[in-house]
Amino acid sequence: MTPTIGILGGGQLGLMLLQAAIDWNLRVHILDPDAEAPCRTLCTTFMQGSLTDYDTVYQFGQSVDVLTIEIERVNVDALEALEREGKKVFPQPSVIRTIQDKRLQKQFYRDHNLPTADFILTENRADVAMIEIQQPDFLPAFHKLGRDGYDGRGVQRIASVADVGKAFDAPGVLEKAVDFDKELAVIVARNERGDVQTFPTVEMVFHPELNLVDYLFAPADISADINQKAQDIARRTADAFGIVGLLAVELFLDKKGNVLINEVAPRPHNSGHHTIRANVTSQFEQHWRAILNYPLGDTEVYQPAAMVNLLGEDGYTGPAVYEGLENLLAVSGVFPFFYGKAITKPFRKMGHVTVMDQSLEALREKVEGVKSSIRVISS
Amino acid sequence: MTPTIGILGGGQLGLMLLQAAIDWNLRVHILDPDAEAPCRTLCTTFMQGSLTDYDTVYQFGQSVDVLTIEIERVNVDALEALEREGKKVFPQPSVIRTIQDKRLQKQFYRDHNLPTADFILTENRADVAMIEIQQPDFLPAFHKLGRDGYDGRGVQRIASVADVGKAFDAPGVLEKAVDFDKELAVIVARNERGDVQTFPTVEMVFHPELNLVDYLFAPADISADINQKAQDIARRTADAFGIVGLLAVELFLDKKGNVLINEVAPRPHNSGHHTIRANVTSQFEQHWRAILNYPLGDTEVYQPAAMVNLLGEDGYTGPAVYEGLENLLAVSGVFPFFYGKAITKPFRKMGHVTVMDQSLEALREKVEGVKSSIRVISS
Repeated sequence: MTPTIGILGGGQLGLMLLQAAIDWNLRVHILDPDAEAPCRTLCTTFMQGSLTDYDTVYQFGQSVDVLTIEIERVNVDALEALEREGKKVFPQPSVIRTIQDKRLQKQFYRDHNLPTADFILTENRADVAMIEIQQPDFLPAFHKLGRDGYDGRGVQRIASVADVGKAFDAPGVLEKAVDFDKELAVIVARNERGDVQTFPTVEMVFHPELNLVDYLFAPADISADINQKAQDIARRTADAFGIVGLLAVELFLDKKGNVLINEVAPRPHNSGHHTIRANVTSQFEQHWRAILNYPLGDTEVYQPAAMVNLLGEDGYTGPAVYEGLENLLAVSGVFPFFYGKAITKPFRKMGHVTVMDQSLEALREKVEGVKSSIRVISS
Repeated sequence: MTPTIGILGGGQLGLMLLQAAIDWNLRVHILDPDAEAPCRTLCTTFMQGSLTDYDTVYQFGQSVDVLTIEIERVNVDALEALEREGKKVFPQPSVIRTIQDKRLQKQFYRDHNLPTADFILTENRADVAMIEIQQPDFLPAFHKLGRDGYDGRGVQRIASVADVGKAFDAPGVLEKAVDFDKELAVIVARNERGDVQTFPTVEMVFHPELNLVDYLFAPADISADINQKAQDIARRTADAFGIVGLLAVELFLDKKGNVLINEVAPRPHNSGHHTIRANVTSQFEQHWRAILNYPLGDTEVYQPAAMVNLLGEDGYTGPAVYEGLENLLAVSGVFPFFYGKAITKPFRKMGHVTVMDQSLEALREKVEGVKSSIRVISS
């Protein structure tokens, strides 16, 4: 019998997981705090409730055979209780717990000899001030909150003693800034029996102001040697965690050719949305294969692809309208995906566009065309 | 604003339409007589009701902006009333009406100089007997019921006077048997502004006993000249109907190299399921593009593909179990799709498997592997 599955979170990643689940007729139940979550009408049952409340998560988990996540800000205590009682919880609660806390995450890399930027754990703002004075060579650095920092919140750049006021007065980690050439990402899948399969390395181009991925290319424009390093690190990291599910490994390529782990996410990731169109197996199907302990799928690329995030236009808050869809659809190999969020806000992730073509140059041109042709505004 | 869409029918074609609709966040309502229809939990609202009852179809249609079908056995009078009142109904009721009746459909080809097997319209069994006596050269032939013949029902082979008892004593069409070499199919899409786009020609291999597609290959193993004929006929047929939506054109290639229309379906079709994985745009997304009057998508093939129908195993009726899924998923480029029908019956369409590879030979081998590795039985 096919198991009953629960997902904590019903946003865009849940939506794409549900889309992939249709192929195998999986019965998927969703828990999300938002009554208007994108997944609400596309799952077997939708339950509105907090992802961080012990009782809510525990009760939701009781009703399913396999529990997974689309967001890591969830109640791990409840997941551990469910796991102890014999539920399949993938990724495992211990993995989520380590990744939830940037301090534990960084220490994990050090303990497992996984390359990452140098760092010092800090307990409060005074610790940061002390480092600035005693180890000026450690600057510039980023001070990151241990917990609850997401999407660019909970990170401050500390360039000199003058920035000490920006440091968090709470447990955090001061991470030496990497003078990087590129940002890369590798999504890796691992199933219960320990099979590991990576997706081709992607290259992320960040929006200069928003600290969000602006667009990415895949495969990355890097040497075979660098690619091998990135792929090996992703694979070793998944094995070190012993994760069952997907692990998205974000990497820095520094100017000396070193590849360093920036951070990881134990779930489908923005850097893999193009795999729905461009790869033999998508990251979403791969997630199901991994957590249901099926053989992992082939990740080969059909065509080079780019992915552009569609962010809510600055200055518009209200019911979302996609302006320019018609022009977009007129271009061969351009595929929008809208997340079904009713309300747009400035810079909110409202969708993405997958762009495919034979060459990197053609892709770059199409990406610019996409960015200038579609806007998410309010009605 | 995105329009509200209704689909008459919530079976497997509806399911795959819903899957494609997720990308564009389309709000889709489903009407189906079966409370357990595959689409029931994956649409905005699900309404249980008859597709052939005037009032039910009319009322369902009132609640949406655009109405479409996944099955042609629907109440066309209701659709015509809705169309008169200004609703967008695609494919148009007039097209469905012609296609529903094999007599009108055959006459349509003759009226529009579209190549099809020679035929004689018959009113009753006595007409068939008369032809057998007066025109013995017209045999062997197939006698087809004008209306309500589906999936091999409503068709009888008439080889000689001895078979007259098998002919239908109701309005029908006697169609001269084609001594064919191959059966082909071309799915063509046409939008409201008259853009037309075809999918590559596929080659169908029928199950010798069941009169159902056993598997198909795409692109078809035919000469460029034959391919051009098939593509042209599909395009001309779509234009002749003036259809808005998809038209699946099933064709015979006879032993003299003539390409003849067998029959058509005004909707997504079994012969296009592989396009989800193997083509830049799937037939399901193309259907949405066509009926929403968007530019049609590129239909290019990424890789040669085959599609195997998964039929309920003979001798099993009851809750469906898919035996051998694990082995199937272990083969690269093999992707099952299950339709979520709770009950399996002998030869019921329970799913399909898309198979991809670089060459036709490799595909044929994989197809045999698939057929021997998975079975749909009951628990």
